[in-house]
Amino acid sequence: MTLSLSAAKSHRQPWLGLIEQYREYLPVNEKTPVITLQEGNTPLIPVPSIAQLVGRQVRVFVKYDGLNPTGSFKDRGMTLAISKAKEAGAKAVICASTGNTSAAAAAYARRGGMRAFVLIPDGYVALGKLAQALLYGAEVLAIKGNFDQALEIVREMAETYPVTLVNSVNPYRLEGQKTGAFEVVDVLGNAPDWLCIPVGNAGNITAYWMGFCQYHQIQKCDRLPKMMGFQAAGAAPLVTGQPVAHPETIATAIRIGNPASWEKAVAAQQASTGNFHAVTDAEIIEAYRLLACEEGIFCEPASAASVAGLLQVKDQVPTGATVVCVLTGNGLKDPDTAIKHSQSQFKQGIEPELLAVAEAMGF
Amino acid sequence: MTLSLSAAKSHRQPWLGLIEQYREYLPVNEKTPVITLQEGNTPLIPVPSIAQLVGRQVRVFVKYDGLNPTGSFKDRGMTLAISKAKEAGAKAVICASTGNTSAAAAAYARRGGMRAFVLIPDGYVALGKLAQALLYGAEVLAIKGNFDQALEIVREMAETYPVTLVNSVNPYRLEGQKTGAFEVVDVLGNAPDWLCIPVGNAGNITAYWMGFCQYHQIQKCDRLPKMMGFQAAGAAPLVTGQPVAHPETIATAIRIGNPASWEKAVAAQQASTGNFHAVTDAEIIEAYRLLACEEGIFCEPASAASVAGLLQVKDQVPTGATVVCVLTGNGLKDPDTAIKHSQSQFKQGIEPELLAVAEAMGF
Repeated sequence: MTLSLSAAKSHRQPWLGLIEQYREYLPVNEKTPVITLQEGNTPLIPVPSIAQLVGRQVRVFVKYDGLNPTGSFKDRGMTLAISKAKEAGAKAVICASTGNTSAAAAAYARRGGMRAFVLIPDGYVALGKLAQALLYGAEVLAIKGNFDQALEIVREMAETYPVTLVNSVNPYRLEGQKTGAFEVVDVLGNAPDWLCIPVGNAGNITAYWMGFCQYHQIQKCDRLPKMMGFQAAGAAPLVTGQPVAHPETIATAIRIGNPASWEKAVAAQQASTGNFHAVTDAEIIEAYRLLACEEGIFCEPASAASVAGLLQVKDQVPTGATVVCVLTGNGLKDPDTAIKHSQSQFKQGIEPELLAVAEAMGF
Repeated sequence: MTLSLSAAKSHRQPWLGLIEQYREYLPVNEKTPVITLQEGNTPLIPVPSIAQLVGRQVRVFVKYDGLNPTGSFKDRGMTLAISKAKEAGAKAVICASTGNTSAAAAAYARRGGMRAFVLIPDGYVALGKLAQALLYGAEVLAIKGNFDQALEIVREMAETYPVTLVNSVNPYRLEGQKTGAFEVVDVLGNAPDWLCIPVGNAGNITAYWMGFCQYHQIQKCDRLPKMMGFQAAGAAPLVTGQPVAHPETIATAIRIGNPASWEKAVAAQQASTGNFHAVTDAEIIEAYRLLACEEGIFCEPASAASVAGLLQVKDQVPTGATVVCVLTGNGLKDPDTAIKHSQSQFKQGIEPELLAVAEAMGF
């Protein structure tokens, strides 16, 4: 195929996925087989209606990571975890997860020609939640036990059998996820003043902080953001300082009582002079609706915790500051919440005539 | 915010949406308010397992337009249609649609500060299909009539009241959609040999052809692709040459019996010496599964018609050719089909012990 056309002039460098884009900052070498779906490079979208609510010339953007290939930020870590598993010769990967992790693990493992096992507690989860992973070809095993037992067994499996663990303890996951921070800086030209992010297992806040620090060290940015982590009120161990035995929230993706990256997240919060706050389910749903209805952005309920949190503490944002809120997942992942919490009008039984329709529209 | 950092060196030009990217080729001017969610710039992903099935060194890529902001290619046309409506001073838009169009119309209209009306036949559609549009703030009106009546009424509404029609007859829709072809050429450096595309209302095949022709005229590419349109066997008027009174297929997004862009699509097929073919629902589901399970790509069933079609006529592809298959929508739009047609293993009731799990995994 010739490249000697005038086409070559405006030839836009294609995005080949985050490993190729950030190769020099990631633990890969020329022998690493790159398993990619061209994840990353997600939009950083201005949200003027949110900015207006904050006021005082604050600029607000959302990092819409729900537009990753499997619909969540998990793809960032999974492309690296699966590429490294392939490099190490793995024939299968395993995780305990009922949500975004299992979908990402299955998609990348299958693309890399590996089997993907997902361990879950019996009767724990609706089939709908697993539909995506199942279609990707995940092999799902439900044990007569709880989620902690599932986690324990996948760890043991990975130690004893030729299966690579891709749960959050896999160190490559955070290495991949830190590229979210790189992208924010690459677009803004510097780090934002505040980074607002939902916190469940606390891996993503840890990874973003890693990314900002690495970029700061090599002078890609000349400042570091305050890391503002927001948890659901019913699952806020980092706010209360105590694990939560029975976490509850509508934001299932952050319904975690004992985060795996607890200490690292606290370290990021302290080093950045940021903070953790709890947002109620009502605040989360309000932000979720606001993003959809005013900005045209449909995210998972858990994602909206970052915007709900910003609005809760908006008076603390410095005048004229730049704030980025991370939206971790695609709203299409959870249609039930959309149906339940839409406040839109749905009028039925209208006569099929122009005037009747015009009247229903308010003309 | 300073740009005098070393950051600026590798500063990647951010993607600001397709209107800004392709402004010179679109009917916009400096007064057009750009309503954007940074749509476009979707991945062109190599699919080696599909290529292997075709054989003879054929290269196959999928254009994964399901990663647009509302989950389908409709965003390409809608950003332009809504921006032009805003430019013209519209306060509201209207369409008759139960699927991807209504979601895109609602998201962009609300982002542009306009009301979004969606007209549908009473009892025609499950609430789940409309969940996304409703959350974006669409105002849905169900008439006691059929879909043709709904279409007729929205046309009349737009003629009589200050409401802009954003159904497929809106000419800006195709203008925006043609950018899909621009992006393919920009990444490949030339047009592909074949462009395989699902055909329902026949707007997208028309738009892609417009895009390729425009780029060819200004020498961005030195050839034009064969346009290969694939319809579902139960809704294949362009194959049979006759409208279908009661179209039926699992691929709801292309379940259309009398396409709006019929003549234009035929013109594109003829000018490009391409063809129309019908694929069965079984072939569509097989391609849908293959994409998920071998490539890690989850698309709407209708999208898979392009790959199903390629596989059906693979012996006609020239040796060593480059083929692009358009995947029009995100698989998350239709979780029911994923649940119903996944062939994955789901084993339950396993004892919570290492050996029991290992045995279930085949060790």
